[in-house]
Amino acid sequence: MGGVTAPATPDDVAAAARRIEPHVRRTPVLDVEVPTPGGPRRVTLKLELLQVTGSFKVRGAFNRVLSAPEVPPVGVIAASGGNHGLAVAHVASTLGLAAEIFVPEASPAAKVDRLRAVGGRVGVTVGGALYADAQEAATRRAAESGALVVHPYDQVEVIAGQGTMSRELEEQAPDVDTILVAVGGGGLIAGAACWFEGRRRIVAVEPATSCALAAALRAGHPVDVEVSGVAADSLGARRVGDLPFAAAQVGVTACLTVSDDEIVRAQRHLWSDVRLVAEPGGATALAALLSGAYVPEPDERVAVVVCGANTDPASVATPRADG
Amino acid sequence: MGGVTAPATPDDVAAAARRIEPHVRRTPVLDVEVPTPGGPRRVTLKLELLQVTGSFKVRGAFNRVLSAPEVPPVGVIAASGGNHGLAVAHVASTLGLAAEIFVPEASPAAKVDRLRAVGGRVGVTVGGALYADAQEAATRRAAESGALVVHPYDQVEVIAGQGTMSRELEEQAPDVDTILVAVGGGGLIAGAACWFEGRRRIVAVEPATSCALAAALRAGHPVDVEVSGVAADSLGARRVGDLPFAAAQVGVTACLTVSDDEIVRAQRHLWSDVRLVAEPGGATALAALLSGAYVPEPDERVAVVVCGANTDPASVATPRADG
Ligand SMILES: Cc1ncc(COP(=O)(O)O)c(C=O)c1O
Ligand SMILES: Cc1ncc(COP(=O)(O)O)c(C=O)c1O
Repeated sequence: MGGVTAPATPDDVAAAARRIEPHVRRTPVLDVEVPTPGGPRRVTLKLELLQVTGSFKVRGAFNRVLSAPEVPPVGVIAASGGNHGLAVAHVASTLGLAAEIFVPEASPAAKVDRLRAVGGRVGVTVGGALYADAQEAATRRAAESGALVVHPYDQVEVIAGQGTMSRELEEQAPDVDTILVAVGGGGLIAGAACWFEGRRRIVAVEPATSCALAAALRAGHPVDVEVSGVAADSLGARRVGDLPFAAAQVGVTACLTVSDDEIVRAQRHLWSDVRLVAEPGGATALAALLSGAYVPEPDERVAVVVCGANTDPASVATPRADG
Repeated sequence: MGGVTAPATPDDVAAAARRIEPHVRRTPVLDVEVPTPGGPRRVTLKLELLQVTGSFKVRGAFNRVLSAPEVPPVGVIAASGGNHGLAVAHVASTLGLAAEIFVPEASPAAKVDRLRAVGGRVGVTVGGALYADAQEAATRRAAESGALVVHPYDQVEVIAGQGTMSRELEEQAPDVDTILVAVGGGGLIAGAACWFEGRRRIVAVEPATSCALAAALRAGHPVDVEVSGVAADSLGARRVGDLPFAAAQVGVTACLTVSDDEIVRAQRHLWSDVRLVAEPGGATALAALLSGAYVPEPDERVAVVVCGANTDPASVATPRADG
């Protein structure tokens, strides 16, 4: 892939880590044995679902806002009915900034409720039926108001911020060979690719019903895809970002898909065996291992990023617990 | 307290750690800021609720069984409708042993369902209305059958096993001054007292509606108390064990109580702010900090053991999430 270069450097990630350190949690890792079609395997779970606001998204959002030379009085703006919106609202309220979050009508009630509950000078505007409409409304508003746009994945500062998750993971589990990461618009995996610079295998996992990265890699450039399924509220970007796509071209080893059933099974396993409540997008990377979509070598050490918890906890229980 | 000695030594705890290491998780710690009446405070949470079977109880149960010179063919026996029963069943099924678990009729359905689902050669016998009746039935059966009794708290090997939680915590967070621990029959806190030998402040937290340790310390010896309340299924021992009482006399700095409301508030906080599902007994130690029952010095570094997750996850959600 000749001229393609990564959008952020390890130095960018290290600078982001220093910048956001007072505001985010160093989420722990936990070694567990998980059942796979080839038998039980030890894996390292990175418990990023225990992050402030319940997902990694605050890392990128804090870095974007804290590295802006100046935030205008009108504050920050973002479009998202989900974890990114919650993260930007939290960043604004923590830093005493105004924020306007455009949410699509289709957003899950649990997430919009959490958003409205953040308080501070955070406004929530319902802007259009789908995410793309909300994004368009936010972009129009930002052009008028001059608010600082915090993109969910297609900005260098956001990618560098998400990269701090990988930097922590390397400190906590230096022996890991391979990292499984769920992909929506590609910010989290781009951060991993930019931090590791080829020192680790990085495996992308997407729902079969919203696989924008797989489609982009096949086409040779980002393309629009249809999105649906249980994880669409977190992984349902219609198109990967240009910067994440460049990062993926240089740093992603493989790109796999899992079915909705496999995602739900991984969610239930996380509850019944580890007592973690992961949202569908948060359980997607693990689904690749449990389902056999990813089959590690016998001696390969695998880490799985469990990246979000923003769901109704009642949704993870099985009628009959198996753990 | 003249002649009183701790029931287990740090060497017993270290030996237990080696013995159980292949079978238990090294549960992580997580530093978070929590709201207290005196303002926000950083504390270290020991995430023992992510332990195998969803509570610390497997530590003591594995150590008891693995340090027995011989387990008779009839296997192991225990009385408990809760986390101890689940732990003993898991130990037996892992080690290929038979087990008989006597559960009182009053046991929560979620726990008995998990118990029946363990599989292997684990029998579940409903034995009497209350825990004390089930314990009596188990003791009678053991006398006939010769099965190895695994007591929930009043055996040296069980206390040494629970002490491995404290040993891990010291390695993970060496700077901690004070550790808050929930108390039922006293095994977990006895393990802490035996491991730390006065090197840390150890604070016992009990529900106001089942405070067997407070009553014993007042009386100068273990006494029966009435038990009820939201945490009774894990913390509702009617009387602390003799060995835990001896350990508490030499190693427990303070013994506090919290109300059911405070426990439920701590559960909800753990979900809304940290995305952890703790059962009432698992949230009780944190309740002491959130409620102001325990007020640390300004520079005091506090760890809180979050020790159990075996509840219906739907029970931790608030009608309106606040995190
Ligand atoms: C829980 C969770 N996992 C994964 C993702 C995907 O992240 P990205 O868009 O950076 O690929 C998101 C995005 O919102 C998310 O909320
Ligand atoms: C979650 C939880 N916390 C605390 C306790 C109390 O432990 P101990 O009886 O060792 O004091 C128990 C006992 O079952 C428990 O299950």
